Amino acid sequence: MALATPEGYRALSENTVADYLAGLPDIAARLGGTAADWSVTEVGDGNLNLVFIVEGPDGSVCAKQSLPYVRLVGEGWPMPLERAFFEHSCLTEHGAHVGRLIPEIYNYDPLLFAIVMERLSPHIIMRQGMIRAVRYPHFAEHISTYLARSLFFTSDLALAAREKKRKMKVFCDNTELCNITEDLIFTDPYREHERNRWTSPQLDGIAGSFRQDAELKVAVSRLKLKFMSSAEALLHGDLHTGSVMVTEEDSRVIDPEFAFFGPMGFDIGAVIGNLLLNYFSQDGHATVDESREDYQDWVLKTTEQVWTEFARKFLALWSDGAAGDAYPHDLFADAAGVEALELERQAYLRRLFADTIGFGAAKMIRRILGLAHNIDLEWIEDPDRRAACETRCLTLARDMMVNTSDFRSIADVTAAARAVRGEG
Amino acid sequence: MALATPEGYRALSENTVADYLAGLPDIAARLGGTAADWSVTEVGDGNLNLVFIVEGPDGSVCAKQSLPYVRLVGEGWPMPLERAFFEHSCLTEHGAHVGRLIPEIYNYDPLLFAIVMERLSPHIIMRQGMIRAVRYPHFAEHISTYLARSLFFTSDLALAAREKKRKMKVFCDNTELCNITEDLIFTDPYREHERNRWTSPQLDGIAGSFRQDAELKVAVSRLKLKFMSSAEALLHGDLHTGSVMVTEEDSRVIDPEFAFFGPMGFDIGAVIGNLLLNYFSQDGHATVDESREDYQDWVLKTTEQVWTEFARKFLALWSDGAAGDAYPHDLFADAAGVEALELERQAYLRRLFADTIGFGAAKMIRRILGLAHNIDLEWIEDPDRRAACETRCLTLARDMMVNTSDFRSIADVTAAARAVRGEG
Repeated sequence: MALATPEGYRALSENTVADYLAGLPDIAARLGGTAADWSVTEVGDGNLNLVFIVEGPDGSVCAKQSLPYVRLVGEGWPMPLERAFFEHSCLTEHGAHVGRLIPEIYNYDPLLFAIVMERLSPHIIMRQGMIRAVRYPHFAEHISTYLARSLFFTSDLALAAREKKRKMKVFCDNTELCNITEDLIFTDPYREHERNRWTSPQLDGIAGSFRQDAELKVAVSRLKLKFMSSAEALLHGDLHTGSVMVTEEDSRVIDPEFAFFGPMGFDIGAVIGNLLLNYFSQDGHATVDESREDYQDWVLKTTEQVWTEFARKFLALWSDGAAGDAYPHDLFADAAGVEALELERQAYLRRLFADTIGFGAAKMIRRILGLAHNIDLEWIEDPDRRAACETRCLTLARDMMVNTSDFRSIADVTAAARAVRGEG
Repeated sequence: MALATPEGYRALSENTVADYLAGLPDIAARLGGTAADWSVTEVGDGNLNLVFIVEGPDGSVCAKQSLPYVRLVGEGWPMPLERAFFEHSCLTEHGAHVGRLIPEIYNYDPLLFAIVMERLSPHIIMRQGMIRAVRYPHFAEHISTYLARSLFFTSDLALAAREKKRKMKVFCDNTELCNITEDLIFTDPYREHERNRWTSPQLDGIAGSFRQDAELKVAVSRLKLKFMSSAEALLHGDLHTGSVMVTEEDSRVIDPEFAFFGPMGFDIGAVIGNLLLNYFSQDGHATVDESREDYQDWVLKTTEQVWTEFARKFLALWSDGAAGDAYPHDLFADAAGVEALELERQAYLRRLFADTIGFGAAKMIRRILGLAHNIDLEWIEDPDRRAACETRCLTLARDMMVNTSDFRSIADVTAAARAVRGEG
């Protein structure tokens, strides 16, 4: 292997992972039998890491290991092994607050940069279900709880400043993965770069116009600065619908390897941006026999619920038990204080909503004009049809990013989405 | 000593500091002769640290050492020795950009938490000069350069994100000193606390009204949240007129032990708030024989120059050579981009001005209603006269903090100061 790795590190394989797990007594007991009885399948979808599903007579586990490079690209794009450390650290921090909304963690191995965790079954990646128009009636409820609790409890509203700085310090080292976001989301789609791609020639015009759109470039750069300098809470950092595993009853957030202390709106916007992207993509999946209109209604309704439920839960946490150093309790104990603080909470949520709209838009644009695309759109085979969906998506996203203050509520966003699509 | 200290640490004294410096060849050479020839004077003004001036036949140095507690209070208020480390780290980071606007550093001793640096002579603490109505015609020029360069070059506008995070991580540990600011500046003056004191009974009424002023408490809490979560640049953290040593020709910023990555407006506001505080205090120092009107004019003119020169220099740095990851260069290379970025720089400065006004107000209030007062006001012996000055100061500060957006320019601030004082 050309890339240097720390002593003791070796990449696991389908042949070696069972022996490795046999050395972890708790895991071995969970699987039952002996290593010889276990079946191993590598299921990493190929982007970054190795992911093994290991099944034994009594149970199964999932083992995820960092490689020292981006698996999709190879050794030409090195990537720090430590991303497993940050993923595990974030799962631990968030896990204390979100319970079963993330997988249970069984083991972390700092030498192999490997996490052994609950195997989620029969869960699938949410995006795959959404492309087939599967509804997840509890998703908005689950993800809004995840967002409200993970963000609130790692913010200055809930933590003492020294405690927050102690946690923040750990994630200051996750710079390589933050850099990927800074480049791929906030920069590359707005300039010529060899990593960019789009449906061509159909989108050549709009891609070119975005690269020359000074107003848009200022707006995305302002968001980028906020991403880099606003340490509000411990973010998942990559919270799209490919980072959620679901059944119709259950939702689990996975893969927080991009975790760092950043602006809350980035995580919330990621969810909302990816839902909107799916909404527009449905026109490429609809057939004469299968209209997707009802599903699109469901997607927009879910989008609305994600924000409204997030806001309601976040406000409730803040009102009920905030013990952080921000807005200290004893300053607002009298009647006037209670009332003023409640107005300030509303103002805080309005600022956070604006961030959410902006970051959501950035997430939509990068999936169409940047390096990494979503299968919601990629799986539309006809390029003209795909480009039509993508153009609508870009049109709304530009409006969200440049005219953010025009969107006063999440209903304004879904109404704008319908209008762009030509609905009523 | 009741407080545990790391192995190797010992507090220096007038009797031992010469022998200590004799063991540092560069310092010994600078002083000339031998330890027996050196005279030592302890000059720490008693708040936090030990400060020795050591004079030899060929030169002199200043040695500053942390004690494990607040010297003013004693062992009952422990304080981490590491503040010397943060001071030295900040001096090193800022020093690369501000040159002779800080003292030259000769040595840092991580065991003794001691910094040996240039002895500034015949400099005095600026506040002491201002109380005597001494003008510093170059101060606005010097401090605006210090602010513009120290803040710009440690921000995302000048640094690559990974470089900034690497620096930021170091200062994440300076939580104890940040906590002092969070408590003493942003919290205590707005609630009943045994540490608070004010000119009583004259200010009992206004102190009580501030504690019940919900609008004001929301405003200061919003600033506190920004202080805790907005990592814009490496701040000095305590930049009042007691942290500047001056002659009529020279200005040097000292004592950045509160350094951390925070909102730029906090440092700029500290300078402006302390100038305004001095402006109002002059009415307590004027006598029949000595009007301070002209000096007050000079103070307000200087206040205006600090902001306008800061803004001009900061914008020039940004326009000329910004190489940071924020607002990346190649996104704004065409004519429309150049124009849009220039408008965005103006908008950025407007946001920074609002922060500056708010933080400046917080600095003024804490010096009158909180624990640590300024000699500008404390040295006014007649409590009625002092209280009159302090009341004007509090009146302006409340307006600045609550009605921040009414102040569109620094001239609006100085005009409001004059109006509160009953001038034209």
